[in-house]
Amino acid sequence: MFRHTDHMQFDIAPENPDPVFARKLQELIGGTFGEMTVTMQYFMQGWNCRMKGKYKDLIMDVATEEIGHVEMIATMVARLLEGAPATESTKNAMGDPVVAAVMGGMDPQQAIVSGGGALLANSNGVPWNGSYIVASGNLLADFRSNVSLESQGRLQTARLFHMTDDPGVKAMLRFNLARDTYHQNLWLAAIEELKADGIEDTIVPNDLFDEEFAEHATSLWHLSDGADADKGRWAHGTAPDGIHQNGFLANPEPLGNVQAGPPPDPKLYATYDGAMGEPRAAAFGTEKGVVGKIKDAVDPTS
Amino acid sequence: MFRHTDHMQFDIAPENPDPVFARKLQELIGGTFGEMTVTMQYFMQGWNCRMKGKYKDLIMDVATEEIGHVEMIATMVARLLEGAPATESTKNAMGDPVVAAVMGGMDPQQAIVSGGGALLANSNGVPWNGSYIVASGNLLADFRSNVSLESQGRLQTARLFHMTDDPGVKAMLRFNLARDTYHQNLWLAAIEELKADGIEDTIVPNDLFDEEFAEHATSLWHLSDGADADKGRWAHGTAPDGIHQNGFLANPEPLGNVQAGPPPDPKLYATYDGAMGEPRAAAFGTEKGVVGKIKDAVDPTS
Amino acid sequence: MFRHTDHMQFDIAPENPDPVFARKLQELIGGTFGEMTVTMQYFMQGWNCRMKGKYKDLIMDVATEEIGHVEMIATMVARLLEGAPATESTKNAMGDPVVAAVMGGMDPQQAIVSGGGALLANSNGVPWNGSYIVASGNLLADFRSNVSLESQGRLQTARLFHMTDDPGVKAMLRFNLARDTYHQNLWLAAIEELKADGIEDTIVPNDLFDEEFAEHATSLWHLSDGADADKGRWAHGTAPDGIHQNGFLANPEPLGNVQAGPPPDPKLYATYDGAMGEPRAAAFGTEKGVVGKIKDAVDPTS
Amino acid sequence: MFRHTDHMQFDIAPENPDPVFARKLQELIGGTFGEMTVTMQYFMQGWNCRMKGKYKDLIMDVATEEIGHVEMIATMVARLLEGAPATESTKNAMGDPVVAAVMGGMDPQQAIVSGGGALLANSNGVPWNGSYIVASGNLLADFRSNVSLESQGRLQTARLFHMTDDPGVKAMLRFNLARDTYHQNLWLAAIEELKADGIEDTIVPNDLFDEEFAEHATSLWHLSDGADADKGRWAHGTAPDGIHQNGFLANPEPLGNVQAGPPPDPKLYATYDGAMGEPRAAAFGTEKGVVGKIKDAVDPTS
Amino acid sequence: MFRHTDHMQFDIAPENPDPVFARKLQELIGGTFGEMTVTMQYFMQGWNCRMKGKYKDLIMDVATEEIGHVEMIATMVARLLEGAPATESTKNAMGDPVVAAVMGGMDPQQAIVSGGGALLANSNGVPWNGSYIVASGNLLADFRSNVSLESQGRLQTARLFHMTDDPGVKAMLRFNLARDTYHQNLWLAAIEELKADGIEDTIVPNDLFDEEFAEHATSLWHLSDGADADKGRWAHGTAPDGIHQNGFLANPEPLGNVQAGPPPDPKLYATYDGAMGEPRAAAFGTEKGVVGKIKDAVDPTS
Amino acid sequence: MFRHTDHMQFDIAPENPDPVFARKLQELIGGTFGEMTVTMQYFMQGWNCRMKGKYKDLIMDVATEEIGHVEMIATMVARLLEGAPATESTKNAMGDPVVAAVMGGMDPQQAIVSGGGALLANSNGVPWNGSYIVASGNLLADFRSNVSLESQGRLQTARLFHMTDDPGVKAMLRFNLARDTYHQNLWLAAIEELKADGIEDTIVPNDLFDEEFAEHATSLWHLSDGADADKGRWAHGTAPDGIHQNGFLANPEPLGNVQAGPPPDPKLYATYDGAMGEPRAAAFGTEKGVVGKIKDAVDPTS
Repeated sequence: MFRHTDHMQFDIAPENPDPVFARKLQELIGGTFGEMTVTMQYFMQGWNCRMKGKYKDLIMDVATEEIGHVEMIATMVARLLEGAPATESTKNAMGDPVVAAVMGGMDPQQAIVSGGGALLANSNGVPWNGSYIVASGNLLADFRSNVSLESQGRLQTARLFHMTDDPGVKAMLRFNLARDTYHQNLWLAAIEELKADGIEDTIVPNDLFDEEFAEHATSLWHLSDGADADKGRWAHGTAPDGIHQNGFLANPEPLGNVQAGPPPDPKLYATYDGAMGEPRAAAFGTEKGVVGKIKDAVDPTS
Repeated sequence: MFRHTDHMQFDIAPENPDPVFARKLQELIGGTFGEMTVTMQYFMQGWNCRMKGKYKDLIMDVATEEIGHVEMIATMVARLLEGAPATESTKNAMGDPVVAAVMGGMDPQQAIVSGGGALLANSNGVPWNGSYIVASGNLLADFRSNVSLESQGRLQTARLFHMTDDPGVKAMLRFNLARDTYHQNLWLAAIEELKADGIEDTIVPNDLFDEEFAEHATSLWHLSDGADADKGRWAHGTAPDGIHQNGFLANPEPLGNVQAGPPPDPKLYATYDGAMGEPRAAAFGTEKGVVGKIKDAVDPTS
Repeated sequence: MFRHTDHMQFDIAPENPDPVFARKLQELIGGTFGEMTVTMQYFMQGWNCRMKGKYKDLIMDVATEEIGHVEMIATMVARLLEGAPATESTKNAMGDPVVAAVMGGMDPQQAIVSGGGALLANSNGVPWNGSYIVASGNLLADFRSNVSLESQGRLQTARLFHMTDDPGVKAMLRFNLARDTYHQNLWLAAIEELKADGIEDTIVPNDLFDEEFAEHATSLWHLSDGADADKGRWAHGTAPDGIHQNGFLANPEPLGNVQAGPPPDPKLYATYDGAMGEPRAAAFGTEKGVVGKIKDAVDPTS
Repeated sequence: MFRHTDHMQFDIAPENPDPVFARKLQELIGGTFGEMTVTMQYFMQGWNCRMKGKYKDLIMDVATEEIGHVEMIATMVARLLEGAPATESTKNAMGDPVVAAVMGGMDPQQAIVSGGGALLANSNGVPWNGSYIVASGNLLADFRSNVSLESQGRLQTARLFHMTDDPGVKAMLRFNLARDTYHQNLWLAAIEELKADGIEDTIVPNDLFDEEFAEHATSLWHLSDGADADKGRWAHGTAPDGIHQNGFLANPEPLGNVQAGPPPDPKLYATYDGAMGEPRAAAFGTEKGVVGKIKDAVDPTS
Repeated sequence: MFRHTDHMQFDIAPENPDPVFARKLQELIGGTFGEMTVTMQYFMQGWNCRMKGKYKDLIMDVATEEIGHVEMIATMVARLLEGAPATESTKNAMGDPVVAAVMGGMDPQQAIVSGGGALLANSNGVPWNGSYIVASGNLLADFRSNVSLESQGRLQTARLFHMTDDPGVKAMLRFNLARDTYHQNLWLAAIEELKADGIEDTIVPNDLFDEEFAEHATSLWHLSDGADADKGRWAHGTAPDGIHQNGFLANPEPLGNVQAGPPPDPKLYATYDGAMGEPRAAAFGTEKGVVGKIKDAVDPTS
Repeated sequence: MFRHTDHMQFDIAPENPDPVFARKLQELIGGTFGEMTVTMQYFMQGWNCRMKGKYKDLIMDVATEEIGHVEMIATMVARLLEGAPATESTKNAMGDPVVAAVMGGMDPQQAIVSGGGALLANSNGVPWNGSYIVASGNLLADFRSNVSLESQGRLQTARLFHMTDDPGVKAMLRFNLARDTYHQNLWLAAIEELKADGIEDTIVPNDLFDEEFAEHATSLWHLSDGADADKGRWAHGTAPDGIHQNGFLANPEPLGNVQAGPPPDPKLYATYDGAMGEPRAAAFGTEKGVVGKIKDAVDPTS
C-alpha cells in the first residue's frame, strides 16, 4: 500500500517557460527509458520477487522513489508550458517567426488533449506501453536490464541537459543525473552481491550447461567482412564466466539443412505443387499410449 | 550489402509436429527479447557506430548471425504446424478432447493469416515493433543492453526447453542456448575491453560529474518499509565506479516544493479559480535582444 | 445496411488553406476522442444492444450521423492542405521563415503517405485503434462513457476553435460544438430515462450489493497529505445512490497480508532460496470428484 | 513523493491456484479499464489540476489508493499461477484432458516472459498503454470520465466474480466491488459539488454558447430506420442543461456541399484530370501585411 | 452523409452457437484484412479522390457496402457467443473436457469487455488500427492495394469456411466469398479502365523515368543461392511495362562506399575516437545567399 | 544463413546535411511501405513458401537485396543529421529563425534516443511493427501485395525526390526509384508466370466457386448517390476472370433479417428486458453423439 505527500522529492522551478523543451522532456516521462518504465519495471520486479529480504526491499525502495520522478517531470512539463502560444491561430503565429517556430516545435496534444499538461507519451507523442518493462523473476537477468535502463536514462538526461540553459530546469536535471549515477552503481553493486551470495553466476539462467551444445558456446561466427572483428578479447582467452575459452570462426559454413516449410494443409491454400507429399498429423501419443486410449474411448466407430 | 544461402545455420528437424508449442515459440521470433529484436538492435547499433574497427566489426558479425536465427525459428514454427487441426471445425474438434485442447492452445492467426507459417508477433499474437530495440550510439550503454537482451533470451529459451520433449526441437534449442551463453560472455567481454581501451568507464555517459549534484549520487532513499534494504553493498562501501561512497538515507524527507501546475491558458478550459493569477509568457530573448529586434522589424505597428 | 449521399451534413469551406491547423485537426479524426471513436463506439454499442426499441434506435441514429463527421473533417483536412509547401525542399523553405515554420508544424505523412489528405491518426501521427471504444453491453455504463466522450470531444473542439481565425473553418467548428452540446444533453437525458424506466440504477452493474463487503463501500481512504480531501460531499452525507453514507478514513491502515509471490516453478528460473518450500499444484477437483475420475480413467498406471 | 508499505490494502489469499483465471484477471491490471488506467488517470489528473484544495486533494487520495490495487491484483495473479502446468510439454499435457485444457486457457507469456508473474497487459496479452488515460485539465470532463471508468471497472469485476468459486479470490473481488461502488458514488458526488460550487455547469466546456450554431444544438437527426428513436426524453422537453429544448429531425437532409478534395499538388501524384484547376497557396497574410513584408525582406529578387 | 437501415445486407442466422469460432471470426472484423480495413480504406480513398466521376462514385459505392459487412460479422459474432460458458468457473469447466476446451479456445475479452459481443480486434485480440489502411491519392497504387486486400480477404474467408460446418455460418461466408470474388474482379477491371482511359500506366507513379538511373531498372540482383531465380520471365524478355528489358545480375558486386556514420555531435555522447574529425554544420544557403542575409540581419554582432 | 559486406549496394553521399529531410526519410525506413516492410515481407514469404524452385529463389533474392536498403537509408539519415542543431537550447535557437525552424521540423528522438542516427519508426515517430507485412502462403495473393507495396514505395520515394535538391540524396533516390520500377515489373511478371504455369488463376484462392453464392459474385451494389458508378467496365461485360458477367444493382434492397444480438448471459449484465427469452447453449454434438457420450461418461450424476 502507498502513501503520498504533495511535497516533491526535489524542487521544480523553471526560470522561464519553454514549450519546445516541454515536448522533448516527454521522452523522460513516456519514452522507452523514461520514468514510467523505471517505475513499473521496478514495481513488477519487486512484486514478482520470490526471495524475501534485502533484494526485494531494495527493489521496492527504488521503485517507490521512481514514481515520484514521474510526478516531478510531469510537473516540470506543465510549468514549461505556461504561456505557450498553444491557442494562437496559425495566421497570427506566422506574423512572428519566433512564435511560428515555437508552434512548429511544440507537441500539439499537450494543448489539445491535456490542456497544458504532460502526456503519458514520448517526445514524438507515441503512448508509453507495458511492453517496455522487464520483470522476468530472475534477479540477475533483471538487474542487468536495470543497469541498462539507468544507463540509457542518464544518457538521455545528459543529452537533454545540453538542450536547455534555464537554471531551474538544469537544477532538476542535475538531481536526476546524480540519481542515475547512483542507480547505475546500485544495480552494478547488486549484481556483485548476487554473485557474492552464490545466488546467481555469470550466465543467465545458471543452468542447462550440460544440455546445451558446448562446442557452439565459444566462437564468434565471422559473417561480415570487417577486418578487425577478431581483435577483441571476445575472440581470445578465457570468457567472463571463467569457464569457456573464446574463439573465432573465421570462415564459418552453415551446419543446417536447406530452409523449407513442410507440406501444407490444402484447406489453407498455400501455393503448392505436391512435391513434398501430404502433411503428417501431430502425434502426441505413441503406440496406443495415453492419448490413444482416450481416442478409442470416445470414438463411436471403434 | 547482404548475401544469403538457403542452408540454415543449424538443423531444423522436429521429430513430430506440435502446434501448441508452435504458438509458444513465437515468443522467440517476435517477443520483446526475440530474434527480431537482437537482429535489428545489433544492425542499428552497427550502422550507427561511429568508431571504425573491432567494435563495429564485432557488432556486424553478430547481427548477421542473428537474422539467420529468425530464419531458423520461423522455419521451426512452420514445421511444428504440419498437420495441425487448424481447419477442423469446432464441432469435430470437440469430439476428441485432445484435438479440442490443441485447438484451444493454438494461435489462430498462424492458420488464418499466415497459412501455416510463423508471424512477426509474440506468443500472444502482439506484433513485434521497433520500439523494442536499443541503439543509442553510446557503446557502453548499448553493450549493457545487449547483455540484458541475451540474458533474457537465454532465460526464455531455457524455459521453452522444458516445454517440449521432442528431440529435434530440443536440438535446435541446445544450439540456441549455447549461442546465448557465448553472446552473454561476448558482450561482457566487450564491456571489459571498452574499459581496458579507456573509451568508456563505469557510468554512462562518462561526463557531467561536475554538473550533477554530487550529494545525491550516493544514497538509497528508504521509501518502502522492508527491513533489509540496507543489508547489501549498495548501501555501504565504495561504489562500482570506484569513486562514490554508497550510503543509506533511512528517513528521507522530500526536498522539493509542493506539486502544482502553473496558471492555465483560459482558452484551454482547465478548471481554475484564478488564485495563481495569469500565466507568464515564454521569454526567449531579454531586453530587446536578438529576438526582440526581429519582432520589432516585422511589426508594422512599431 | 447503409446508404450514402455525396452531400455532406454541413458545409466544408475554409477561406484559406492552413497546413499547420490541418495537423492539429487530425486530433478530431483519429484521436482518442475523435470522430472515429464516436462512430465506432456507437455502432458497436448499437449492434451489441440487446433491447429492441428506443435505446437501440437512438444509438443507431447518432452513430450514423457520426460517420458523416469523419467525412466532414477528413474533407476539411484535405482542403486546408491545398497548396501547402509539402514538396518544397528544405533549402528553399529555409529561405522564407514563414514557409520554414509551416514546414516544421506540418504532419509529414499528410504529404508522403496520403498525398495531401487526412490520415486515420491523431495530431501526433499515432494511428487510431480499436481499444479506444467502449461497448460493454450495459447501457448505463456505456451511456456514461458516451457523456464523457462527448464532453472531451467538445472540449477539444473548443480548444481548436481558438487556434484558427478562418471563418470557414470556424463555421464547421460552430456546427460541431452545437452537435456536441446536444449529444452531451442527449446521453444525460438517456441516463435519466434508463432510471425512469427502472432499467438501470445508480451503480453499475445493479447487482452484487449483498456480495460486496459493504463496510468498504463508503469511505475515502486518506492516503495523500492534502488538507482538504474531506471537505466535499464525497466524505459526508448520503451518497448519490441514495443508499450509502459517505465517510472519511483519516488514518487508514493496511488490512492485508504482506505482499509476496508463491514458491516458483524451478523450471522457470525465478531467483529463489527455497524458503517458502515447493509450489502447490492447481486443484480443480476435490476428493476424487469429477476431474479425478477422468484422471484415473486415462492414467495407465492406476 | 511516495512511501510504500509491504502490507497490502487487503488480503490476497486464494484457496487454490487457478492459472486459467490468472489470464482473465490480467484484464483488471492492464485492460482499458484496469487498475493501471485508474492509477495513472488519477495521478495525471491530480498533477495537472490547477485548483488547490479539496478537488486536487481528493484526486490524489484516490490515485494513491489505486496503485495499491495494481499491487494487489498482480500479487493475486502470481498466487493463482502457483504450480501451473506451465513447463509441461505438450505431449505430457495431452495425456490428461484437464491439464491440456488448462494449458490452452493460460497466457503463455505469464510463464515465458514473467516467470510466473503478472504482465502489464490485458487478458489477450495486449500491453497497457498511455492512451487509455484521460486527463484534460477540465474537472467536469474528467470526473465524467472517472464515473465511466469506475462503472466499466465494477462491471468487469462483477463478470469476473462469476468466473471463479474460490473463496479467497472472491474475497478480494468483494473488496474491489465495494471500492468500485464507493468510487462511482464519489465521482458522482464530486460532479454535484462542482455544480454546487458554481465552478462547472452541465455542458463541457462551459463556454462558446454564443459562438456555436444554436439551431443545431437541440435535435436528434433520424438517420437510421428504427421506429422508436423519438420515444425518449432526448427528443422532447427541456434538456438536462435546463436551457435547450430537445427536438427530433424526422427527415433530415444534408446541409452541406458535395464532398470533394481541392486540386492536388502535382508533385504528390494524386490522380487528377485538372478539372478543378491549380491549387491555391496558403495565405497567412493579406495585402502585403505582416508576413508579406517578411517575404519581401528576404527575397533577393525584390 | 449516411443513412442506415436495421435490415442487414444478408441473413445472419447460425444454426448453433460456437464460441470458439466466434474468436476466429474476429479476424474478419479487426484483422489487417478484415472488414474495418476495407471500410475505412475505401472511405479514405473516396474522400481523398481528386477526380470526380466514375472512379470516385465506384469507390463510395463499395465503401458504403463494406461498413454493412462490419455490421454483419459483428452480429454473427454475438450470435455465435449465445450461451457460451463465459461465466463458468474454471473448476466447473474442468469437470467437462468439452467445456474446458471451449473455454481455452475462447477470447476472454468477448465476455469480460464486450459482454458477449464482438471487439474491434483480430483473432488474437490485437485492436484494429488506422495504419492498416492505404489511401495515397494515386488511383493505380490504391487499386492495386485494393486487389491485394480483397485477395487476402477472400483467402482468409475461404480458410474460415473450412473451420465451421454450421449451415447458417457457412451461408454468410458463401455470400462473403462471392462478394470478394466480385470485388477482386472489380478492382482488376478498374485498373484496366485506368489504363484504357490513359490516366495511369504500368508503373506508379507514372513519372521520373528520365530521372531514375535507368540501368538499375531492369535486373534481378542474385543475392541468395537458389539455383532457379533466373528461370522466370522477370529475368528475360520485355517487362510488363512494355519498355524495359528484364535482366539477371548473376554475380552482383556492391556499387557503394563503405557503410559509416558521420562524426557525431559530442554532446550526444556517441562513442567516438575523433578519427573522422568534427561534424560539418548543415548549410542551407551558400555564399551569403538568401538565408545568410537573414542571419546577418538578425545578428546584433555583425 | 547470411553474410554481409560493409560496402553498401549504392553510394550514400549527401552534399550537405539536412536534418529536416532526415525526419521525412524515416518514412522509407519504418513507414508502412518502407524498407523494413519489404525486407520482412519478402523474407517471411520466402521462408513460408512451399514450392521449391524459381518462385522461392526469386523471393529470397529480392528479400536479401532489401535488407541492404534498410542499411542504405539508415546510413543516409545519420549523414543528413551531421551537425544538426540537436543540442542547441531553445533560447539560442530562437535567435536565428532558420535554426528555430529546423529544430521545429526535426525528429527529437533522432537526437535524444538514437544519438544522431535513424530510428525503426516512420516520419511521425511511430515504431515499425510486424502487422505491416503480408505473407499468407498463397503466392498470387502475396505477389499482388508485393505489387501494391512496390507501387506505394515508389510513389513515396517520388514524393520525397521533390523535397530535396541535394545531388547526393537525389542520387540515392534515383537508384531507389529505378529499383522500385524494376520490382513493380518483377512482381507483375511473376503474376503472369503463375498463370502461365497454371498454378494460380485470377481469383484468390482458386477454389470454392461452387460453394459461393454465384448470384452475388457479379454486381456492384449502388449505395452512394454518385451518378457515374455504372460508367466503368466493372459494371458491364466480362469480368477479368473471364467467367463472370459484370452487373450493376441500381436500387439494391437489403436481403437480410433485422440486426439484433441474441439473448445475453445474465451474469454478463448486458441491459436486457427478457423479451427474447433465455440464451441457448452451444451444441457441439447432436442426439447423444460423440460429445454427448463423453459428457455422460464424466457426469457422476448420470
